[in-house]
Order: sequence, then C-alpha cells, then structure tokens
Amino acid sequence: MSFNFELIKKHNKARAGEIRTKHGLVRTPVFMPVATQSAIKALNFDQLDDCGAQIVLSNTYHLHLRPGEKLIHQAGGLHQWTSYHKPFLTDSGGFQIFSQARLGKCKITDQGAEFIDNLDGQKHFISPEDSIRIQNQLGADIIMAFDHCPDGGASYEETKEAMDRTHAWAERCVQAHQQALENKTRAEDQALFLIVQGGIFDDLRKESAAAISKLDAPGYAIGGVSVGESREDIDRVVDFTTELLPEDKPRYLMGIGTKEDIVKAVAAGIDMFDCVMPTRIARHGAFFDENGQRLLIKNARFKEDFGPLAPNCKCYACTRHSRAYIRHLFRAQEILAATLLSIHNLTYLIQLTENIRTEILENRFDPNKHLG
Amino acid sequence: MSFNFELIKKHNKARAGEIRTKHGLVRTPVFMPVATQSAIKALNFDQLDDCGAQIVLSNTYHLHLRPGEKLIHQAGGLHQWTSYHKPFLTDSGGFQIFSQARLGKCKITDQGAEFIDNLDGQKHFISPEDSIRIQNQLGADIIMAFDHCPDGGASYEETKEAMDRTHAWAERCVQAHQQALENKTRAEDQALFLIVQGGIFDDLRKESAAAISKLDAPGYAIGGVSVGESREDIDRVVDFTTELLPEDKPRYLMGIGTKEDIVKAVAAGIDMFDCVMPTRIARHGAFFDENGQRLLIKNARFKEDFGPLAPNCKCYACTRHSRAYIRHLFRAQEILAATLLSIHNLTYLIQLTENIRTEILENRFDPNKHLG
Repeated sequence: MSFNFELIKKHNKARAGEIRTKHGLVRTPVFMPVATQSAIKALNFDQLDDCGAQIVLSNTYHLHLRPGEKLIHQAGGLHQWTSYHKPFLTDSGGFQIFSQARLGKCKITDQGAEFIDNLDGQKHFISPEDSIRIQNQLGADIIMAFDHCPDGGASYEETKEAMDRTHAWAERCVQAHQQALENKTRAEDQALFLIVQGGIFDDLRKESAAAISKLDAPGYAIGGVSVGESREDIDRVVDFTTELLPEDKPRYLMGIGTKEDIVKAVAAGIDMFDCVMPTRIARHGAFFDENGQRLLIKNARFKEDFGPLAPNCKCYACTRHSRAYIRHLFRAQEILAATLLSIHNLTYLIQLTENIRTEILENRFDPNKHLG
Repeated sequence: MSFNFELIKKHNKARAGEIRTKHGLVRTPVFMPVATQSAIKALNFDQLDDCGAQIVLSNTYHLHLRPGEKLIHQAGGLHQWTSYHKPFLTDSGGFQIFSQARLGKCKITDQGAEFIDNLDGQKHFISPEDSIRIQNQLGADIIMAFDHCPDGGASYEETKEAMDRTHAWAERCVQAHQQALENKTRAEDQALFLIVQGGIFDDLRKESAAAISKLDAPGYAIGGVSVGESREDIDRVVDFTTELLPEDKPRYLMGIGTKEDIVKAVAAGIDMFDCVMPTRIARHGAFFDENGQRLLIKNARFKEDFGPLAPNCKCYACTRHSRAYIRHLFRAQEILAATLLSIHNLTYLIQLTENIRTEILENRFDPNKHLG
C-alpha cells in the first residue's frame, strides 16, 4: 500500500507530520475542506488549490444516495470523477445516518443501520461491510470505519452500547477491506482509519482507545465529538483520548473546525480536522477577520469599506476585492459573494493550520497566543 | 478621448474591426457578456477572461438602485469597483425602466421616466440627463443614450412617439455628456453611443437612423429589437437599419445573443452584441452542444456520459469535467454546475464570434454554413 505516515516533530504534545498517499503528500496538522456531494460548495477545485488545500473530504452517505458509488466507480473513482487528483478522504456514512436516528428515521441493530432516504423516501440498509464496499468503489485515499456515533446527550448505557457496537463493526470493516484487498480491487491504495467512540465518559474513551488501537490500522480517528456535549467535555475528551492513541499513526478529530477547536486539538496531539463550517457560514455572509472573529458582510459599517476582508490576507478575494464590493454582491444575491467568502474562510483556516505547523517545527507553538 | 474604431475588413456586409478604449482593445464582431449587478452570475472575472471575453456590459438601472452610482464612483468607477480592468459598457437604464411600463409601474413624459423601484417600492425619476450623470459616475468605457424603447407590439403612433422622444433625448444626452466633459470629470474617456428606434416600421427606422446619424457619435446602436416582434420582423429591421448607419462607426445590436441572431446580425453588418441568455440558461441546466443546439444536462441520457459538454470545446468545463459529473452537480443543486455551464455557454458564443471574425478576415464568412 502506498500509504505512510511520518511523525517529523513534536513540541509538547503537538505534532508535525507527513502523510504520503498515492495522490500526494499531506503535511499535518491539516485542515480538510468538505466536498459533501463531490464538489466544494460555490468553488471549483482549482480555486480550492489556491486556498492551499492538500486533501478533501467527501461524504459516503450523500454519494451513495446520489449519484451512487457505481457511477463514480465507473468513472474511475472520485479522482477521475471530479478531476481533482490530490488525496481524498471519505467518511463512512454513519454520522449522517445516525443523525436521522434523532428524527426517528433510522433503526440500528448489530447488523447495521436502516434509514430513510431524504431524497426519495425509500428505506435503505447499510452494514459495516456495505460502507467499506461503497468506499472501495468511491476510491478515496483514506476511508473510515463504519461506527455508531450516539447523540452527545446519550446516557452511559447508550454510549457503551454504541461503543461496543463500534468495536465489533471496526473488526468487520477491517475484514471487509482485507477481503477487497485480496480481490485485487482498487482498495489496495486505500488506508482504512478506525474510530474511537465512548462519548463524554473517560472510562469508555479509555476502553475504546485500547480496543481500537489493538487493531493495527494506518490511522485513528476520534468520533462522537461536537455532537451536542459541552465545550468543557469536548476539550477534556479530546485531550484525554488523543494521548491514548498510537504515536506513530495519524490522528483525526472528526467534524471539528473552528479556530479555537483547531488550536486546542493540535495542542492535544491531533493531526487532521474537517469541517463544513467555513463554507457554510460563507454562504450566509460570514467571514473571518484577521483574528479569526466572525463578521457579517451585510453589516452597514462595511458599506463604504474599500479594504479587504482581512488585512494581509493573500487569498483570491482579499487581493482583488473590497468589503464594499462583496457586501454589494451578497445583498444582490450574487453567487460570487458565496464564492469569495468561501475562498477567504477556507484560506484563513488552512493558513492558520500551516502557521501552527511552522510554529511546531520551530518549537514555538503556544496555543494561548492563538486563543488570546 | 481615447476611444477609436477602425474598420479592418469587409466581406459582403459583414465587418471585422477594432475598438480601442482606455482599458484596451476590442476585436469586433464581439459578444459582450452581461454583469447585470457588476458581477457575471456564477463567475468571477478571471473565469470570464478564460472564456475569451473582451468587454463586459453592466446595467445602469440595477446599479443605480443598488449599490448606487455614488458608491461605485467613490470606489473609483466600475473598473476599480470590480477589479476588472478590461472595457466596460453600461446601458442607459431605459430598457429595464420601460419594461415596467407594461406592468403599469412606469410613467413616461418628455421629461423622463418615473418608475417604482422593485427593491423598496419607492418612486424614482430618471431623465436623459440623469442617466448620463449616473453613467459618468459609473465610469464605463462606452455609455448609452437614454432612449424610449416601446413594446414590440406597439402601434405605429406609439412607436413614432417613442422614436421622436428618443431623438430629442439623444440630443439632451449628447449635451449632458458634453457638459460633463467640460467639467473635466472622468467622462473624458467615455464614448457615448446613440440609439436608433422605430420598431418594426421601415419608414420610422429610416427616419430614426437618419436623425441619429446626424448627431456625430462615436458609435451607434439599434434598439427596440427582440422585444416581442416576430422573427421575420427582427431579421428585416436589423438588415435594413444596419445599412443606414455610418460605416466608420461601430454598430451595436442591443440584447441579441443566440447563435442564429449573431450570425444573421454579423451578416447584416453589426459589430457588437450582448445577451444574458448564455448564463441564464446555464443556471437552468441548459448548454450548447458543438452545433449550438441547446441540451438539458439533467436529461437521463447524460447519466453515464463521461464525455465533455461539447467535443473539441477548449473551455474550463469541457477540458476537466464530464457531462455525467456536471449532471450530478446540477441535480444536487451544487453552485458549481451553474458555474461550469455558464463558462461553457459563454465560451461557445465568444468562440463562435471569433471564428466568424476570422472567416470575415479570410473572405470566407458564409452565414448559411453556420445556420445549416
């Protein structure tokens, strides 16, 4: 397999590393933009390159329902399908499926999850083996185990049940992926990451980290974070759990992506993040200033502001356009507003992560300096 | 003034020329994409460059209402405002205002037009002098006289009244622009084009062309075309009227832009066109095939079509993406679908116009070959 991780430098618990994949190098810590339906919303992939992106996440749940993994496989996999030839990561689909559990639209058994397709109202069933098969067909460089992610407010018993199921499913995912490898499918270049669950309960996180680490995987993720629990619980769980993961493997904190989240997670020893937030808030007119504070472009104070979204930002939007112009575009409902704000917000978080990487390499990463 | 037109070559009535402006050269015949609210819908200006665009039209009516010409003037004019430093053309606002007349929302007198702002329901009044003042503030390279464009179904009397008013207003526009020039405003680099009216009535068109041509202008336009009249009337009026315009000045057919329209108009001696159609139909999923036929990307037959939108097309979309991928993006309501289809459609019409130019230069422009 062409996948490899090298830990280059540690500064306290923070790490700088390099992930090698068939589709190129990823320098960590890394922020991964999300191409939910195999496109970054309001951007093309060249614009994403300009933002400094190194790897993109796409969602198995959405692609399975539309256009279907079969079509993407027929096209030659995600890279050929999108014409984006840098690394891809796909999630397992579990998170989106279990989000429907709260709406009573999903039934989970040890076999897998039955859920209702939002698009056509049809019932679907996905097992851990199905998720791996679908991800094999999609052809991302990194694929994720099918885990059971309970609600942030779940009880100890519910959380333990989901964790135990996640462990059993992890083994089944490893086996399914192994089977695909033996069948000489394109799976040979795919690294299967396993996921730790356990909610906000330290003993369960400890048990889950131990059980998952035993299954020798090319990378590990912390799941079930930022699903409704408190800020303090998130920080404690991430800090506590990260230390329990193998040091020589990349560590991925799923669905995390504010400036504060990123800084704290890197300080805890996390290497990878993803979040739809920067592009989602952009479509609602929000952008980061030079300190990472969210501002709303529609605000009247930007009406005659001919300066860039953020001073010193080198992104496409800031080097060409003023707050006044982008405010006008947003008010006039021009698509270009969403494009420019998305480019800016992605560039901000990617640049933040790259700056942190440099600080780690130079032994001067101070989380408080970023959060102050 | 830095504006100049050179007629380089004639082949039958078709012409190849060059317009020089302060912001660069425009080779004619030319298709002008429309940036209604100072942005091309779903595109940025670099993407527009990639489509081969040489000059962009923006709408005075929309910009006057939002964000207001004062703000754009404050930014330094349209070029600074948008960071697009190629030539701009602004229309007079008249067409959009008079479109509201049909809805009973517009009152026209010899003084000007009173209309209701769709955005805030407020009454506005614009005179010919106002339109020129607004366009002086916007700062486009080419500005248009404020004309009275009647409905395509207007009677002879109504059409004559609108034509007479257009002639009187043309003189007032010339005077207002002259006044601005004497006041040493940025108007000095702006060429004011005058507009011929007269509807579908040959004698009125003849009278209007004579009256307007007498006012020595840097360019002339044919207005009141494609506003509800028949295909035959359009063709006859354009063919008839174009010949009556001064040969040494650029000729602009307003609001025209299908392949058929362009080919016929060039054959009649027209140099400039604009139309929102290629980007508007793109947002509804329509694109041109290699013959200029409109196809709908959502069509099931494109589901597994991994070929480009049009064979041999060199546009950004066709050199990277398949019909199957773009179909998926369109069905998934991804903004990128509108962007890719807009790029393709604009490139198609711009490339068509450039091919025609080459044919004229090489004495081999045959309209029937394009229309066959």
